[in-house]
Amino acid sequence: MNPRAVAVAGATGVVGRQMLKTLEDRNFPIKSLKVLASERSKGKTLTFKGEEVPVEVLSEDSFKGVDIALFSAGGGTSKKYAPCAAKDGCVVVDNSSAWRMDPEVPLVVPEVNPGDIQKHKGIIENPNCSTIQMVVVLKPLHDAAQITRVVVSTYQAVSGAGSAALNELAEQSAAVLNGEAGGHSVFPHTIAFNCIPQIPQKDAFTENGYTSEEMKMVNETKKILGDANIRVTATTVRVPVFNCHSESVNVETVKKLTADQARALLRQAPGVIVEDDLDNQLYPLAVRATGKWDTFVGRIRDDISHPSALDMWIVSDNLLKGAALNAVQIAEYL
Amino acid sequence: MNPRAVAVAGATGVVGRQMLKTLEDRNFPIKSLKVLASERSKGKTLTFKGEEVPVEVLSEDSFKGVDIALFSAGGGTSKKYAPCAAKDGCVVVDNSSAWRMDPEVPLVVPEVNPGDIQKHKGIIENPNCSTIQMVVVLKPLHDAAQITRVVVSTYQAVSGAGSAALNELAEQSAAVLNGEAGGHSVFPHTIAFNCIPQIPQKDAFTENGYTSEEMKMVNETKKILGDANIRVTATTVRVPVFNCHSESVNVETVKKLTADQARALLRQAPGVIVEDDLDNQLYPLAVRATGKWDTFVGRIRDDISHPSALDMWIVSDNLLKGAALNAVQIAEYL
Repeated sequence: MNPRAVAVAGATGVVGRQMLKTLEDRNFPIKSLKVLASERSKGKTLTFKGEEVPVEVLSEDSFKGVDIALFSAGGGTSKKYAPCAAKDGCVVVDNSSAWRMDPEVPLVVPEVNPGDIQKHKGIIENPNCSTIQMVVVLKPLHDAAQITRVVVSTYQAVSGAGSAALNELAEQSAAVLNGEAGGHSVFPHTIAFNCIPQIPQKDAFTENGYTSEEMKMVNETKKILGDANIRVTATTVRVPVFNCHSESVNVETVKKLTADQARALLRQAPGVIVEDDLDNQLYPLAVRATGKWDTFVGRIRDDISHPSALDMWIVSDNLLKGAALNAVQIAEYL
Repeated sequence: MNPRAVAVAGATGVVGRQMLKTLEDRNFPIKSLKVLASERSKGKTLTFKGEEVPVEVLSEDSFKGVDIALFSAGGGTSKKYAPCAAKDGCVVVDNSSAWRMDPEVPLVVPEVNPGDIQKHKGIIENPNCSTIQMVVVLKPLHDAAQITRVVVSTYQAVSGAGSAALNELAEQSAAVLNGEAGGHSVFPHTIAFNCIPQIPQKDAFTENGYTSEEMKMVNETKKILGDANIRVTATTVRVPVFNCHSESVNVETVKKLTADQARALLRQAPGVIVEDDLDNQLYPLAVRATGKWDTFVGRIRDDISHPSALDMWIVSDNLLKGAALNAVQIAEYL
């Protein structure tokens, strides 16, 4: 691959920093690097491959001469600047949800639908974190047995809500351990030693009673797997975990797959590691997945409540495979 | 109700202490009280209604003249001593899982199957904590629409694993916040800021890949609801929450129930409080349910993946409705 001129927009955020680290860790061939952020971060520097890179203020002119821009700056910023970048001939990989369900914009997980990348018209969308790790595991099962329905409950880490959320969990936890109440401003309720069945923490509401995060899992799964007949229901829950999302997933298929057959398929699947030995207390764990590029799956069982279904437990680093890594992998395909 | 001679076996444990507190809080009519524990607790005293009660060592002769004994002392202790108590004319309400699936022994949640209490032959079983709170909510739905299948994922607090587990979560959390690793002895892995898809922490394994906790939810639900045709699959997960279990529950029914109809039914259901107003960020929360006698349900939605199913979120105090309170309620019926 020829070295590229790369920009990272929203570079000072939790995911933006992970994007820089992932470009570095995967030795992405870079000709030039721009790190872009809002006015607030003016004067800051970020480190890339041991060198200080000054943060530039994101503007409509930021993308001239840039080949690939990774965006992780929120939907509003993407909507404003990604089209400018695309107009200047830059390909945007966007981590916001701005155009995820736009039929003109590919929504890509490279292990699942790499072919969709080439259909882009300047913008490629990175799916939602909780969807990515699920579809990486669902893909080989769908290919082998045709998934009809998915019932998923998530156990989502706070890192997806940014650095203020990480601080809130740490500070609140310390307060509770010291017998104090601890305030909250990021999350709608105490997250320390609690589970909150609402994601995102603001503007979560949709008309059918699902949260927007839940509807992302419903709709994005169909689009990425390229099958509008897959029915999904999701309950997305924030848990007091710093990083890595866990998911309890029930999968119904047309063709009966045994747990053994599913394990065999998943052992061959790209980006998937099977950790499934309950006798030896081996199964995916959030604390062990941090910093890993793979998605981990275990507790794979023949669902005893259904003639053709499986239960499983899926864990991945929501900042990496769920965000930064998936975006960099898309960029690698470009 | 005439005052009764009551004994609590396993009185020094987390649930035993809650049993004493619940007898006190509900003003259970007590003629005499024995608090029983193992040799290890000899010499200790416990407080009941402001008075110190000396702990007696549990023996085969402990139950002479006792009318009702609440057991929370583990399966082995129940197996050894509950039959002795029953032989002496005492009625045992047992919180272990020793005889839960014995067809001769009633398994009772008073809001659901109070009629089964009178079938006892000296021993009545208290169901598993994660099952109790679920069936309290399922009962009115089953009566109205006939449940065919349940897919449940749990978010279970550590208090169910005893006082050492509460200490382990607190100490590990403090260690992690201080940048240390923190050891573990109660749980098979770090529980602080992590989710462990294995309950119980020891001897969890069954032949079909489910844990014993999961199989309790599968089998006890059928027995309590008195319908062997209800199919259940469960994934039970320990989360870093001190007290109160949360559950994400998908319920399929023969007759279509809308979310509105389900809410209306549940508002009338004994022991159930509907907290369901997502726009105002109102839904059941573990931190708010501690110390409460009710089971809380919210996030009730028409499942968009199925023609006749509902999603919901159920929270209750696992030490109270999940253990001590349910046992005392059974004793009240006696």
